[in-house]
Order: sequence, then C-alpha cells, then structure tokens
Amino acid sequence: MRKIIKNGTIVTAADTYFGDILIDDGIIVMIGVDLEDDEAEIVDASGCYVFPGGIDPHTHLDMPFGGTVTADDFESGTIAAAYGGTTTVIDFCLTSKGAPLAKAVETWHNKSKGLAVIDYGFHLMVSEVTDDVLHELPQIIEEEGITSLKVFMAYKNVLQADDGTLYKTLLMAKEQGALVMVHAENGDVIDFLVRKALEEGNTDPIYHALTRPAILEGEATGRAADLTELADSQLYVVHVTCAEAVWKIAEARNKGLRVFGETCPQYLMLDQSSLEKPDFEGAKYVWSPPLREQWNQDVLWDSLRNGQLQTVGSDQCSFNFKGQKELGLGDFSKIPNGGPMIEDRFSILYSEGVHKGRLSINKFVDVISTASAKLFGLFPQKGTIAIGSDADIVIFDPSVERTISAATHHMKVDYNAFEGMQVTGEPISVLSRGEFVIRDREFVGKPGYGQYLHRGRFGEADKPAVKKLPIGGAY
Amino acid sequence: MRKIIKNGTIVTAADTYFGDILIDDGIIVMIGVDLEDDEAEIVDASGCYVFPGGIDPHTHLDMPFGGTVTADDFESGTIAAAYGGTTTVIDFCLTSKGAPLAKAVETWHNKSKGLAVIDYGFHLMVSEVTDDVLHELPQIIEEEGITSLKVFMAYKNVLQADDGTLYKTLLMAKEQGALVMVHAENGDVIDFLVRKALEEGNTDPIYHALTRPAILEGEATGRAADLTELADSQLYVVHVTCAEAVWKIAEARNKGLRVFGETCPQYLMLDQSSLEKPDFEGAKYVWSPPLREQWNQDVLWDSLRNGQLQTVGSDQCSFNFKGQKELGLGDFSKIPNGGPMIEDRFSILYSEGVHKGRLSINKFVDVISTASAKLFGLFPQKGTIAIGSDADIVIFDPSVERTISAATHHMKVDYNAFEGMQVTGEPISVLSRGEFVIRDREFVGKPGYGQYLHRGRFGEADKPAVKKLPIGGAY
Amino acid sequence: MRKIIKNGTIVTAADTYFGDILIDDGIIVMIGVDLEDDEAEIVDASGCYVFPGGIDPHTHLDMPFGGTVTADDFESGTIAAAYGGTTTVIDFCLTSKGAPLAKAVETWHNKSKGLAVIDYGFHLMVSEVTDDVLHELPQIIEEEGITSLKVFMAYKNVLQADDGTLYKTLLMAKEQGALVMVHAENGDVIDFLVRKALEEGNTDPIYHALTRPAILEGEATGRAADLTELADSQLYVVHVTCAEAVWKIAEARNKGLRVFGETCPQYLMLDQSSLEKPDFEGAKYVWSPPLREQWNQDVLWDSLRNGQLQTVGSDQCSFNFKGQKELGLGDFSKIPNGGPMIEDRFSILYSEGVHKGRLSINKFVDVISTASAKLFGLFPQKGTIAIGSDADIVIFDPSVERTISAATHHMKVDYNAFEGMQVTGEPISVLSRGEFVIRDREFVGKPGYGQYLHRGRFGEADKPAVKKLPIGGAY
Amino acid sequence: MRKIIKNGTIVTAADTYFGDILIDDGIIVMIGVDLEDDEAEIVDASGCYVFPGGIDPHTHLDMPFGGTVTADDFESGTIAAAYGGTTTVIDFCLTSKGAPLAKAVETWHNKSKGLAVIDYGFHLMVSEVTDDVLHELPQIIEEEGITSLKVFMAYKNVLQADDGTLYKTLLMAKEQGALVMVHAENGDVIDFLVRKALEEGNTDPIYHALTRPAILEGEATGRAADLTELADSQLYVVHVTCAEAVWKIAEARNKGLRVFGETCPQYLMLDQSSLEKPDFEGAKYVWSPPLREQWNQDVLWDSLRNGQLQTVGSDQCSFNFKGQKELGLGDFSKIPNGGPMIEDRFSILYSEGVHKGRLSINKFVDVISTASAKLFGLFPQKGTIAIGSDADIVIFDPSVERTISAATHHMKVDYNAFEGMQVTGEPISVLSRGEFVIRDREFVGKPGYGQYLHRGRFGEADKPAVKKLPIGGAY
Repeated sequence: MRKIIKNGTIVTAADTYFGDILIDDGIIVMIGVDLEDDEAEIVDASGCYVFPGGIDPHTHLDMPFGGTVTADDFESGTIAAAYGGTTTVIDFCLTSKGAPLAKAVETWHNKSKGLAVIDYGFHLMVSEVTDDVLHELPQIIEEEGITSLKVFMAYKNVLQADDGTLYKTLLMAKEQGALVMVHAENGDVIDFLVRKALEEGNTDPIYHALTRPAILEGEATGRAADLTELADSQLYVVHVTCAEAVWKIAEARNKGLRVFGETCPQYLMLDQSSLEKPDFEGAKYVWSPPLREQWNQDVLWDSLRNGQLQTVGSDQCSFNFKGQKELGLGDFSKIPNGGPMIEDRFSILYSEGVHKGRLSINKFVDVISTASAKLFGLFPQKGTIAIGSDADIVIFDPSVERTISAATHHMKVDYNAFEGMQVTGEPISVLSRGEFVIRDREFVGKPGYGQYLHRGRFGEADKPAVKKLPIGGAY
Repeated sequence: MRKIIKNGTIVTAADTYFGDILIDDGIIVMIGVDLEDDEAEIVDASGCYVFPGGIDPHTHLDMPFGGTVTADDFESGTIAAAYGGTTTVIDFCLTSKGAPLAKAVETWHNKSKGLAVIDYGFHLMVSEVTDDVLHELPQIIEEEGITSLKVFMAYKNVLQADDGTLYKTLLMAKEQGALVMVHAENGDVIDFLVRKALEEGNTDPIYHALTRPAILEGEATGRAADLTELADSQLYVVHVTCAEAVWKIAEARNKGLRVFGETCPQYLMLDQSSLEKPDFEGAKYVWSPPLREQWNQDVLWDSLRNGQLQTVGSDQCSFNFKGQKELGLGDFSKIPNGGPMIEDRFSILYSEGVHKGRLSINKFVDVISTASAKLFGLFPQKGTIAIGSDADIVIFDPSVERTISAATHHMKVDYNAFEGMQVTGEPISVLSRGEFVIRDREFVGKPGYGQYLHRGRFGEADKPAVKKLPIGGAY
Repeated sequence: MRKIIKNGTIVTAADTYFGDILIDDGIIVMIGVDLEDDEAEIVDASGCYVFPGGIDPHTHLDMPFGGTVTADDFESGTIAAAYGGTTTVIDFCLTSKGAPLAKAVETWHNKSKGLAVIDYGFHLMVSEVTDDVLHELPQIIEEEGITSLKVFMAYKNVLQADDGTLYKTLLMAKEQGALVMVHAENGDVIDFLVRKALEEGNTDPIYHALTRPAILEGEATGRAADLTELADSQLYVVHVTCAEAVWKIAEARNKGLRVFGETCPQYLMLDQSSLEKPDFEGAKYVWSPPLREQWNQDVLWDSLRNGQLQTVGSDQCSFNFKGQKELGLGDFSKIPNGGPMIEDRFSILYSEGVHKGRLSINKFVDVISTASAKLFGLFPQKGTIAIGSDADIVIFDPSVERTISAATHHMKVDYNAFEGMQVTGEPISVLSRGEFVIRDREFVGKPGYGQYLHRGRFGEADKPAVKKLPIGGAY
Repeated sequence: MRKIIKNGTIVTAADTYFGDILIDDGIIVMIGVDLEDDEAEIVDASGCYVFPGGIDPHTHLDMPFGGTVTADDFESGTIAAAYGGTTTVIDFCLTSKGAPLAKAVETWHNKSKGLAVIDYGFHLMVSEVTDDVLHELPQIIEEEGITSLKVFMAYKNVLQADDGTLYKTLLMAKEQGALVMVHAENGDVIDFLVRKALEEGNTDPIYHALTRPAILEGEATGRAADLTELADSQLYVVHVTCAEAVWKIAEARNKGLRVFGETCPQYLMLDQSSLEKPDFEGAKYVWSPPLREQWNQDVLWDSLRNGQLQTVGSDQCSFNFKGQKELGLGDFSKIPNGGPMIEDRFSILYSEGVHKGRLSINKFVDVISTASAKLFGLFPQKGTIAIGSDADIVIFDPSVERTISAATHHMKVDYNAFEGMQVTGEPISVLSRGEFVIRDREFVGKPGYGQYLHRGRFGEADKPAVKKLPIGGAY
C-alpha cells in the first residue's frame, strides 16, 4: 500500500532537491531525507529525476474526423501517454449544433470509461450559444466539472463559430469560472485559399501549409485577445505556432489580460519543409495550424522561457499513414489533420529544452505539468510533488540516449513524425495515484484504472474557503 | 535542536499545501502529514501560512550619503527586516574610483560583522573598469562570492558611470557569471534639470520628482537593455517605477534577452502627490527614481503578475526626518535620497498583492523571496521550503488586521512612509536556519547570528555538476 | 469664357505663393504675377487664400437607410457642399446581393443626373463575390470608371460581408487596380451587444456608443490590414475614429503596406459625451462608428499631421431630428446612423487645423482635397491648382469669424451637430470647372451642371504612358 | 534676362503637369500653356521632366578630418553638385570648444566665398553649451540665419557632446526656432569596441562596420527622441542607416513628436559586404554610421515612401583612395570617414526610386528637395517650382541610360562608390536663379556665383505675418 521513492532528485516548478517521497494510499504524505517505513515498498530512483507526472492539456483520442476516426483510442492513447511520462490527459469532447451537451459528454464518457489507464478530464467544445446552451452549460460545468470551453475560429462550415459565439462564450466563462480555449485561425479566408489551390490543381500536402499562412493565425489570435479584453474574461490559445501569434499574446499579457498560450513539440522542433517530403510523406506532417518556417521555433522557445506561453500540449490526434493520411492523396484538404505526439511530448521537451539549455528544469516541469494543472482546475491534486497531492510521479533517467521510432513507440499508429530523432533521457517508471503504470519501462497498468477528473473552476483556488486558507492555485 | 512546525499551510513559489516541517540542525529535513519526533520542539502554525523567509535584494544599511549616514545600521536594519518576515538581505557595497575593491568589501564586512541578526550578502558597485579592476574583480567574485555588480547611470559626478563602463561591466559579467544591476536614469540630463530648477528658485521637495521625469528612466532602461543585447549578457534593473521603464524591459524580454526587473513597495503604493505634502513632509517621500503618477502602479502590479518584473526589493535607505531629511530644507537636491522600507515590504506585498487579489500566493512567494534567490545565486539554500534548504521560515497569520506606524515599527528612524496604512496579515514568528529570530512577535535573536553569504554565479546551478544532477536554479 | 483670379495667396499640397490664375474653358492655363487678359473676367482674391476645391471622398446622398432616406439628395447635398468649399463628391453606390451591379449603378446615376451642381463619382459597395460579380465587376470598373470598392465589416445581416468576401475583393482590386474601402467594426459582436443592451432596457442614444466599443474598431481595422498584407493589395479605412484603429493603420504602413485611412470632422472635434444630451438630442450625434472619448482627438490630429491618416471625409448622411432621428425613440438601434457634415468639413478643418496650428496649410489642402484625388484616380484633373487641371477653386477669406448653425446652413436638415461653433475663415466664392457655383456667398450654380467622373485606376498614373511622361499621381 | 523653359513635364512635391515656365530676373514669374515672350530666351525641355533643383542638406566640403582634408572644396564640390542636379547645399560649419562661434562661421565663409557655383547655407555644430555659447548663439542665428544646430553623439573625445549638452541645445532650439540635428550613435561604446578590435589585431576595413553595430545607432536615436520629447523641441536625425533607428523615429512620430529623419543613397543601395572588398578597397565604403546588412534597405525605402523619413542627403565627404583612405592601412580607425556622393544623389534616387517604382515622382521631389527647404527655412525661395520662387531648375531626361564612374564624374576624387552602376535618367541642364550652371551637360557656371543663404527659423513660415497671409512652410 505504501511506497517510498528513494534517492531521487525531486523537481517541481519551483524546486530541485534530493530526497525521498513516501506515498500512502495514492497520496504523497511525506518528503524527506532517508525516509524509512517497514511496510513500504522501496522504489530506487538513484541517478534519476523525480518529476510530477506530465499533464497533457490537449488530446484527441477516439475522435471522428472527416469520415475516419483517430488511430488511438483511450486505451492505446493513455498507455502511450504513460510510457512517455504523462499521467493526466484532458481530451476534447466534441458537440454538435442542436444536440444536448449532456449527450456529447455521455458519448465521451463512454469512449473513455474502462479503457483509460491514467486519469483524464474533458474540455467541452462550444459551437453555438443558444438559449438551450445557456441553460444547460452551467449544469454541465457544475456536475461534470468541465471548466474549459473550446471555440474554433477555423474549419468553416464544420466546427467554426462566429465572433458573436466566441464573445458570448467568453462572457459565460467569466460568469461561470471557466477558461475559453480557441483554435485561432481565420477560417473564412483559409476556406477560400484551400478551394482556390485545389481549383488550380495544387493538391500536394505542402499546399496545406501554403493555404494557412501564419498571418491568419496571428490575425485570429489578436481578434480573440481583443474580444477577451472586451469581455474582461480569460483565454487560452491552443497550439500556437508562429511569431505572429506569440506577439499578439504578448501584447495582451503586457496589458495585464489573462490570456495564455500553448505550443506543441511539433512546432518547437519541425518546420514547413517536412510537408514537401516525397511520396506523399508530407501528409504525415499535416497539422492545423501547419508547421511554419524554422525561425519561428526560436520565438516559441523564448516565449516558454519568458512566460508569454505557459504550456506545451501534444494535440495528439493520430491517423495511420496507410489508409488514413492517404485519404488525402490527390487532395490535401482530405488529409486527416493531426499526428501522434502524446508519447514523445515529455521526452522531447526535456531533451531539447532542459538538456540543450533552453529551459531551466523547473520551467520544464511548469510547462509540461504544473501550469496545466493550475489553468485547468486540477491543482494541487495534480501537477506537482507536494504533501497531499496525488502520487502521479515520473522517475526519469537523464543519462539514457535513445532514438524515437514508430518501431518502438506504443501509439497504435504506423509512423512517428520524429522518426530517428535522438533524445536524451527516458521515463523509467511512472506512477498514477501511487500505483505503477510503467515499471522499469514496461506497462503494468490496466485499462479502466484511470479516473475521470471533475475539475475546479478558473481562479477558484484563489478564493478563500470557509474553514481553510486559500490554496492559491491561480496561474 | 530539532523543531517541527505543525499544521501550517506551507507555500512555495509553486505549491500550497497543508503539512508539517521537520527542521534538524537548521535544515529542512522532512515535510509531511502529522510528523512526529519526540525530541523536537513543536511550533504550532495552525491557521497560519508558512512561507520561506523573505529575501530583500536591495538594501543600504549603514551607508554614507551626502555627508550623513543612514539611520539604520546592520543591527537595527536586520532586526526590523526580521520583524517584517525577511531572513536574508543583500546590501550594496560602495566603492571609490581608484581604491582597491577588496578594501571596500572589507569595509562592508566590518559594518555588518557582529551586528546582523539574519544572513546577508553584498552586491558590489562598479564605478570604472580599469585594468586594476579587470584584474581584481574575478578574485573578488571567486573569493567573496559577490556575483552581482551595480552600475549607476545617474548621480553625475558622484556615482555615475559612462556607457563604456556599463558595457565593459556587462562583458565581464558574462565571462564571470555575474549579474549586472543598473540604476537606470539619465544622470546628465537630470543634473541639468536639478541645477536649472534651483537657479529658478524651485527648491521644494516636489522638484525632486519634477527634475527626474519618467522618460529619463525609460530612456536609460532601454539603453541598458540595448547594451545587454550587444554584450549578450544579463541585466537586472533595480527599482523600476514607471510604465516607460517596464515597456523597455518587456520589449527586451520578448526578444529573448536575460533582462530582469525589480520594483519596490513605494512605487506600487505611493505616488508623486506625496512629495507635495506641506511643512517639508514631502521630503519623507524622496526616493530616486522618484514616485510617479498613480496610473503607473497598475502597470507595475500587472508586470509582477505576468512575469515581466521578477522581484520586489525595499531599497531600504532610511534617514530621519529630523536632522537628516531636513538637510534639504531650501534645496531639494540636498535631501538624502531614500526611506525606510525593509520592515514593511513583505506585509505590504501580501496585503495589497495576495489579499487584494492582485497576485496569487505562489507568485507572492516568488517575488518576495524565490526569484531573488535564483537570480542572485542563493538557491536552493535560500528562497524556498524544500528538503535540504535552510530553515528560513515565516509563520504568517493572515487574519490579523494592523496599522503601520513609526510608533510601532522597529527601524531606527523617526517616520514611516506608510504611516496609518491598514494591512492584513502579520509575521508572527520568524526563523533563520532553524532558530527563532522573532517569536510570537518578539525579537529573540542576537546580533552577530547572521552569516555572510558566499553566493553562486549567475546560471551556475543549471550546469551539470560532476557527481550529482544539475539543480537547475536558473530563473 | 476666361477668368483671372487675381491677387490671391494660392495654396497647393506643396506650395503657397502670391499670384494670379488664368482660366480658359474651365481649365487652369496660366499662373503668374500680374496676369493680364483683356477678354477675361477679373475675380479679385485680395486678402484671400485660393485653394483647390475640396474633394469629399465619403458621402451618402439620397440614400435609403432603415426604412427612411437621407434628408439631402444630390441637389441639396451638392449645393451645401459647394457653399462649404467642396467641388467634388464621391458617393457610395449601394448594391444588393443577387442583383446585377449595373442595375445599382444605374440607380445611382438616376439619383444624381440633373441634380448635382458640382462633379461627382461613385464608389461601389461589394457585398458578395460570386461568379456573377467576378464576371461583371471588371466591366463596371472599365466602363464606369468606378475604381473603389466598399466592403462592410459591420451591420450584420444587412450590409456585412464575411472575411472571405473581403479577401476576394482585395485580390480582385489588386488585379483590376481598384482601392478597397472598409467600414471596420466587428459586426458580429456589435450585433450581440446591441441586442443585449436592448434586452436589458438600455434604449437611450448613449447605448449606441456603448455597444460599439473602440476595441472592436481596432480589431476589425487590424484584421483588414492583415488580409491586405496577405493579398498584397491596397486598403482604405473609412471614418477612423480612435487610437486603437490608428495604431493598426500605423503598424501596417510601417511595414510598407499600402494601407490608408480617413477620419471625419466629427471624430476630430466631438466626443462621446454628446450622445448623453437630454431630450433625445443625443440622437443627433449617432454615427457609426460612434464618437469616442475625447483623448482620441489628439491621436487623430497627430495622425493627419504625420501622414498615418491621409484624408478627411464628411461621411455626409443627414437625417432630420424630427421624424427621422426620432425613429429611434425608445430604441437606439433604430436611430438612423449619420449626420450632416458635407458643408462644414472644409471650414472646420481650416479653422481647427490651420488656424489653430495643428496642420500646416499645405497639409490641409492635402487632406481636404489632393490626397483624395490621388487615391481615387481623379488626379491631376482634380485636387490641385496646376496647369491643365480643372479650375475647381475656392476663394477663402481667412479673416471672417462666423458661427455654424442650422439656421444658416444650406443642408436640408433641421439641425447641425456643430450648432453654435465659432469658426475662422469662410469660402467666399467657389468655381467648378471655371464657372461660379458660389459667388460672394450666394449660390449661382445650377442643378445638372455637375458631371459624372470616370475615375482612373489605383496606381495608374504612375505607369509610363506611350507618348508622354508618367504623371505620377500615386499617393 | 528672361527665359522660357518650354514643353517640359513640370514636377513638384504635389503636382505633375505639362507647361512652360517664364523666368524673369532669376525668379519664376509665370507658368502656363504656350507661354510667349519675344525677349525671352527659349529653352526646350521636350521629353524632359522639369524639377526644382535638388537641395542637399548634408555636405562636408573643404572639411578637415583626422589630419587630412576632404578632396572636394566648395568649388569642385558645388560644380559636381550642379552636374548632378543639385542647386543648393547646406554645409556643416565645425566649431571648437572654447572658441567663439563667430570665428568658426567666418572660417566657413572664407572656405566658400568666391568658390561656390550654386547657393549654399551652413548648419552649425554645437559641442558644448557654456554661458558664452548661450550668449553668442542667438546672435549667430539672427545675424547669419543659421537655424540648424548639429550635435554629435559619437566620436568620443573629438566631436562628441554629452546628453546634457544635447538637451540644452534642444531647449535653446525650441526657444530660438532652430532645428537640432544629431549624429546618433553611442560613442562611448563604439570607442571601446574600436580599441578592443585593434588590440585583438582586427585592423581591416570591415571592422569599421563590426565595431559600430546597428543597435548602437538605434539606441542613440531613441535617446535623442526621448530628450526631444522631454524638451518639447524638434529633432532631425542625419544619415539614418538601419531598421533599429527607423523604428525609434517612427515611434516618436507616431506619438506626435516633431522628429525627422534623413537617409543617404549609400544606405539605400549598398551594404556591409562592400567593406570586405580585397586590397583595402573596403576603405572606399567607410562611412559613419557604417553600411548595414542588406535587408535594412527595404525598411529605408518604405520609410521614405510612408513619410517616416523625410529627406535624402549625400553626406558628401570625399577622400581620395590613394593617399587619404590609405591612411587607414593597418588601422581601420584611421580611415577618413565618408565618401563622394554629392553628384550622384539626385540621379540614384530618381533611377532607383521613381524609375523602379519605389517612390512616386512627387515624393521623389519632396525627399530630394522640397522637404529640406521646408525643414531648414529655405521655403518657398528654394525647393519648388512656383510663382515667386528662385528659378533653381533641373531639366532631366528620363530616357538616358548611363553608367556612373570616377572616370566621368566631376568630383575631385579618385573613385566612386557606385562605379559601374547603371542609372536611368540624367540632368541635362541646370539653372540657379535663372542662370545656366550646366547647359547641355556642360558646366557653364562660375565660381563665386553661388550666394550664401540666410535661412528662416523653424516653423517661422507658419506664423501669420503682419501684412500678408502666412506662407505655411511647416513640414
């Protein structure tokens, strides 16, 4: 029942120190030097960092898209996440106009229940704000603990909401203590550019990037920030890819606004030239927004370091190259958007961030875990190593050199966008609520172990509670 | 020898949780739930926050200025600091052109030794970069652990260095792993404006502010940031007062530069109108840079929250109103610059920051303590509550309502700039390396207990050490 | 047939000099000292400035709006314009989705033919870009010389076009040599704010301003500039009212983009508080975008002076207070938008601009006349005093002091937004193509004298012509 | 005595039209169609542009520098200027600390009198603002009509003034109606970088550029703008070379400040790589500030077009490669700074600006002539083609293709930085006050014809005169 993780170098978003961690009933109950407990199982972490488990704030598991469905479901997806050092995912629950929100949430519960091997929560997509939605949403927030609402500014005629809907969502989020998330690209213009490219016979994967220029992401990001200022609300921009968008976020934050931004490993490490790979291989690199010119990568790393961006999500959304990505042969607009990233997010950020000197190790913990916990109402249950927190823990060996490859990864997808990339460091063992999910690099967890997370409201932890002192989880 | 601080709400720059802290030999050795130790003294912290001791990165104790000397020396100053929740101060060691640096450091050791009741370090002023200085400085950095160098861009003909000196200092700092601190105001123009005001018969305290306009602080801040970019070095701007300066720092940081900024409670809470108080009372509010128009306060608070400014120092530099501030009767330029702030810094930031909802409680810990530890090479010995760190701890009752007053403060000075201000929260007990300095609001420490701190180099904690994992203290 | 305007101080966008002007057959044929011509009529301009006639790039005459029609038609409107020193207007031809553009243009010809007393042209509204429009528009541009296309980003469900339409219009404009004009406000969010205000019982005129905040104009302006950058096209932002919008235009221009901006006398001189006038009088001040906080006025004047804004239009769109503005009693959203301004634009700009030292007299001529001629393909026929140009001339006495009033103005509308305002200077006589329209402050023109202007394409004057040197009219 | 320039295309900063110009007694007295005058000499300008003569606001003729003196004096320099289409130069009168200003002005009169073939004026250098200077300067401004004051922020220990001096000069300029000109580079840091480079054995010409990085020009430009804002005065930044400086000027202008900027043909067309030419040829390209990376050129062109920069000067300062530039063999810091540019400024701007479509032809006239006349108190006597102005006229054939070369240029210097460059267009004939200086490409003027120009004060033309209307020359 009890465990002691011994002799590791424990790291949080603020601290790094040598010590042992005592876990009881899934909770961290003691941290100290030379802890002893006769009944506890001893887990040796010598020579390893002991990190809080990664939190992936942006996944799409078992998600339908353009007539197909993602290669990874909640079982394979969370197993891969765990292998990679992630112990919590927040997945996007899609909704349909006109249908009850509760129905959509129920569908997502059905997708995940019995399959997830680590804990998980849901964001809720908002596609319209009708009277029905206004009536139902507060209930969903209260009962389901879904305190983040996603609005798409792109995918015209499919997912895209208009500015009025975004604004109404921001107002509601303010009132209800929720965080509005936006996919920020100008869908109207992209829709035209895509049609035009196809009409002109430009059907190769590279046109996916060329029809979604960075300026349209910058534009939409600025627009969303402006509406947030007007609504006096809070905003989280998902998958920021480019300087144009970063500058708009920085401008908003410098005005004192509660505007936050997430980037992803693919935007930090890959660039647009990958879309030009021959034999349709470019399709493997089709994300929306698309990969950008390489110089943007420095801007993104700088922004993580100086705090203008707060988190790194995976935007996990895997499709097989064979049979799925290939749907876009002869028409780039039919290539399913997205790629496998849930497993490698943590390691890439450590290796390219900490090991290469771009991020301090504490900032790494912040962007890979703690900040997401604070922004999405999971703190202090998740996102740190502290007394009372869930024992979601990664034992990470920084001395390992290894190669990322589809041949060895655990996602159920037939390629890896980082195939052949050398990384330094590897999660050796991973615990969720004190139980091993990965032990000595082997999966030992079980489907259904993962629990649904009823999350707190935005800013809630900062409000004084009746009988205790405020926790102060605000980011 | 051992102590357990029980039942407090422990707060770090990242975390907030309920728990007990076991201290052994001045070091935090265990943190957990319901800790027990028969030999340990039990200190009850129920209903209180348990914070890491405050670090004040900017004090002037026992400092000569314009023919007089500050009212507080290392004894009264550090006692007042401790009452206020501060357990470490870094004081400015002044140097003279031509004289050996070692001599100046020796003078400062003599001022502090045997008097300080809490730990302390020194910053070193650089007024010229001659061959002698180039030769001596690396020794000082190595032997004394003085890893921060102060350059004045103001006080023409007294402390002011030219841009060449600043640039050379930045280069040397880069090479030696030191952090360059600047007082950023354009001294040439201020010198002219002061003379002109006096010639025109404008001698009242308000002219102190009117002859040091914000634009001259913004200008010098931008200049220092530009030179830092050119030198590829690191910069810390002390006592930032105004939007003009904040914008320049933000611009530099958004470029990815290692430029940092400090503000002070006086700039967050007071404004220029105080200098117009009758009966020469305005002299009490003479700081350089001066208090600004009130709207700047929001910009400063926002900048602490969004991370464009990192720390809050006191710029403690106390002079009695009677006999000292009065030296400037009839000539504002003779008013000794500075005021008492070492005692109230911590409480004002808590009360106006956390209690009023401007800062999360973790960000408060960061700006009042952790960030200074990381920037100035004291981390993880100081600046946090973690296994292995010095037990510098503040037990803080957030339910107390009290009034700041010279009648009750512990600084040896005859006024308080915040006289009559209501604050919420009070440090009840304060420990330095596990020993009480303040116990139940009474001073129980002793002069000479405070130790001199040999500080680490800038960025040093991020470099892998031979036998252990890197600590990663970089800010 | 011939006239000599003698002894005036002639002013152009570049020059100011004393001299005489010889007009023959409506054209300026000679300028010089002591010109003599026995057959010419002598017009004395002693003590007066001789300006090129004003060009008003933004009028709505005989325009239907919300079930009513503007108080001034092409007869009363152009008579008032002439009284005020304006000799050319460019009016907006509205179109309907689905209907042929040619039909709309025909309607506007019918509205103006036989009525206008000065020359006039049309801008064409673009509400959609269908295949029909793509086919018809080049013809209209060629045959009608309509080389400016207006897109509305506001007035949801009425005039508003989506971003795809704006982008397609920009692409077509680039190809055809046209200038795209935008009404830049976020119509989606305004639509919601208006409904919300009305639902909450906020029906007074001031809510017109409160439901159209400046940030929504800034947002839309930036969006239009971004799409212009992407399309590599040209943009003219009509009726800029606020700093938020000016900054976006300045940012675009500083990048080297061909983005231009117009403001109006009402935004330079009036502010939002006018909308709070009692007895529904606030309705007289309902323009879209609305009047702003007063501090914006300085930003607008500065922008005219430093060239970030190029023109001043009237946005003439007059409705009687009685019977028309009153349609909005009890519901501000039903107040017809717009006001009478065609007559006072010139004098207000002279009096508040030149007389009060905000603009040089040459810059005044530029913003009131020359820049519009260059941007809208009328140069050098219109917009200057030079050999070969139309003799559209204003003889302006700068010594007159007078009061603006509905009692004396010539617009057919029952109020004047500047009622009681003192201005310095008055147009004494006004000539259109060499013929007096106003002579010694009396109207002597005749309806139908005004000719329709077939305008050149954007940038056309800069292209070398076959047998002559390029004119170089580019702005 | 009289001349008619017939059938040309006359161009001013605002207008382009076909017409004839009648000149009487050196003054333009009539402009029109088919002018006739039996007594007048007819000058055919068919197929040519007729421009106002160029005004070069930045020349150094017969100037001592580093132990040598410029290759061109007022005779050869002004002859070359005339060949190139320039009819007015404003030269810099250098002063020495301690010596009377009148003495310096007298020296400059002696250098120019009897030699200049076109009209000329002087700017005055200000190196200190002592009581003597404060006393003498208003006299110089009044009696000599020297209304522009130059302050150097670079050339430490030689020409450099400190910020206090710059600020005092700005205050005096405001009071006296003068325009302050700055050479904006941080001289303190450059001095260090130069010494360091030499100590490290880096002596080649390229180190001239590497020791004067763009950021130091941007810094100084921003500093000068800040001091101008504080002084509420007016500033003209000479020879702007880079984006860093342009951005600071744009920022100042967007705030509404009277801050102006000049660039030069060398910065518009050449880049830093020229300094790396072998065989010490790089020395030919040594200007201060230095040539920059090529991408800055687009920023400079854009800034001329959008009005953030106003003028193009030559910074003529010629030294022979043999014997003069060679002084810097083995020590780049001894290379005389500057180059020959007075002759080619006009043609390069026409060819690269107008012919290549970067500038409208009216904007070309503005930057090459009119703007300098307005900024420096020469308008409307100089800088335009208008009734009453001096007949300083260039007849320019835009159809000529020619090659710039030292073999054919008229400057007395042994190289041309644009050797081999193809340009389109050539000044065929040039008149100064109605007399030919260049006729059909031959010099027909005479030394001593040029008159000294007593210039008006800054903004003076905008103030109403007693018996006439204000001219309104303000830029």
